[in-house]
Amino acid sequence: MSERVEDLYPSRLGGTPRILDRVDPVVYGKPGSNAPLSAEDTAFYERNGYLFIPEFFSSKDIAAYSAEMQALRRDRSLADKPWTITERGSGDIRSIFRVHDISPVFGQLCRDPRLVAIAEYLLDDQVYIHQSRVNYKPGFRGREFYWHSDFETWHVEDGMPRMRALSMSITLSENLETNGPLMIVPGSHKRFVSCVGRTPRDHYKSSLIKQEYGIPDDDSLMTLINDGGIDVPKGPPGSLLLFDCNVMHGSNSNITPFPRSNVFFVFNSLKNRVVRPFSGMPPRPEFIAARQSIAPIDARSLAA
Amino acid sequence: MSERVEDLYPSRLGGTPRILDRVDPVVYGKPGSNAPLSAEDTAFYERNGYLFIPEFFSSKDIAAYSAEMQALRRDRSLADKPWTITERGSGDIRSIFRVHDISPVFGQLCRDPRLVAIAEYLLDDQVYIHQSRVNYKPGFRGREFYWHSDFETWHVEDGMPRMRALSMSITLSENLETNGPLMIVPGSHKRFVSCVGRTPRDHYKSSLIKQEYGIPDDDSLMTLINDGGIDVPKGPPGSLLLFDCNVMHGSNSNITPFPRSNVFFVFNSLKNRVVRPFSGMPPRPEFIAARQSIAPIDARSLAA
Repeated sequence: MSERVEDLYPSRLGGTPRILDRVDPVVYGKPGSNAPLSAEDTAFYERNGYLFIPEFFSSKDIAAYSAEMQALRRDRSLADKPWTITERGSGDIRSIFRVHDISPVFGQLCRDPRLVAIAEYLLDDQVYIHQSRVNYKPGFRGREFYWHSDFETWHVEDGMPRMRALSMSITLSENLETNGPLMIVPGSHKRFVSCVGRTPRDHYKSSLIKQEYGIPDDDSLMTLINDGGIDVPKGPPGSLLLFDCNVMHGSNSNITPFPRSNVFFVFNSLKNRVVRPFSGMPPRPEFIAARQSIAPIDARSLAA
Repeated sequence: MSERVEDLYPSRLGGTPRILDRVDPVVYGKPGSNAPLSAEDTAFYERNGYLFIPEFFSSKDIAAYSAEMQALRRDRSLADKPWTITERGSGDIRSIFRVHDISPVFGQLCRDPRLVAIAEYLLDDQVYIHQSRVNYKPGFRGREFYWHSDFETWHVEDGMPRMRALSMSITLSENLETNGPLMIVPGSHKRFVSCVGRTPRDHYKSSLIKQEYGIPDDDSLMTLINDGGIDVPKGPPGSLLLFDCNVMHGSNSNITPFPRSNVFFVFNSLKNRVVRPFSGMPPRPEFIAARQSIAPIDARSLAA
């Protein structure tokens, strides 16, 4: 593994925020009649940095995934594992990482041939799971998640060299306008907000609960939002949200009784395997950022 | 002043939440051709507990009100007054109470003949200002405000005997779906959620920043929302929101760059003057709940 990779997206290196241009493509594959996304959908994704496909999964599938998520949340043996993130205060389980390893149901889901085909197409490479998790944003007391680019963290803290990764979020509950839905800044994925501050050691232990480093400054964020606005994909359970690794996103709190939950997979190009973290700090644990478990997912061989 | 008034809406008296029926009317006046609201609007207000009238004020008026609000926020002499509420952390001014006394502009606004006529009609009495304030919910770091009925607090902590008061909020910024807009539970004003816990002394000093007592339990809230849903009035600056003193409302946090601000007046019926607080605690200060300054507002004599 090359450990001397140029840092094209420097962040958390000093006191001055900057907005840099993205030097990597957004869509690596070639649209065409064999592509798993239409030319129109591909262009939308390229331009906006995300694509929302309502009701991608059947209600039967979603019932099974929801049941699995609830079973995992009730599993006492998971409660004190490092890959299980609990709410401050209540101790309720909010996220479980490496869920594609822990759960055969979600292990199968991330190998869904349709998902893998989309990932391989957009990244034009074999792919592996950089990170997976189930997220549960409870009702009544669901906390906000401040604006961030996932790539900023994956680059600085995990050593992901280039923007050649994407996330797929499968919604397990309805995204309403009121229950703290994900907000996305369209077009923000084409610029990189270099953040201020330095990464403290073991930052991940607190950042999974509340991010304090690697968040954009107000002026940069205002610039991105003035240019792109804010989109709020809304829809029933079973929707599929694809989003680029560098698109700016976040969510307000949720005081409604309606929880918001999803399963989340990060597909990374095999050519974009992580190197030494650009922060210079020790890497985060394997359950947050795969360094060893990088066998490519082959949808074809596993398709039922 | 009668100090032995029956407590028709007991709350914070024990450990069991209850949902009680409202025993007071919502609309006290008689609809008719002389009424300042149409029969349809009156019926909407009666049924839902609120009425949203977009662009009630001209953009010229709103520019003047916004300038006044900003001038008050910049006024250093107000920063350390008890009626000025600052954000934890930043120290930024979030609310200024008794603003109709402090500011001639807002003093005139609360006497707007159209507003007073609506208040006198819905409450069928002369009215006075129980409370007034400007609210500024900042962008980026605007905090949530949990569900509550204003009346619950005004009853328990201020001694407002009956549900014969209403709020008018004049928006000074756009209410978007993303900037933590006010959420209202339609129909919730016809029931009273009796809350658990007891009121600590000087509760107002912390409750204006974060409410911990007088908030509904999860089951009661779920019942109200299952029955009524959640409405989110959205619209441009200058909209007028009327809402009943007992309607359940709240707002999520606001991580967008777009602040949300308004001027807020509580009109109370002169027949519904506050008595000794039902909590048994000393009353809150005059700037939060008028006890002495209860001269009825007479729109006619002040109309320009």
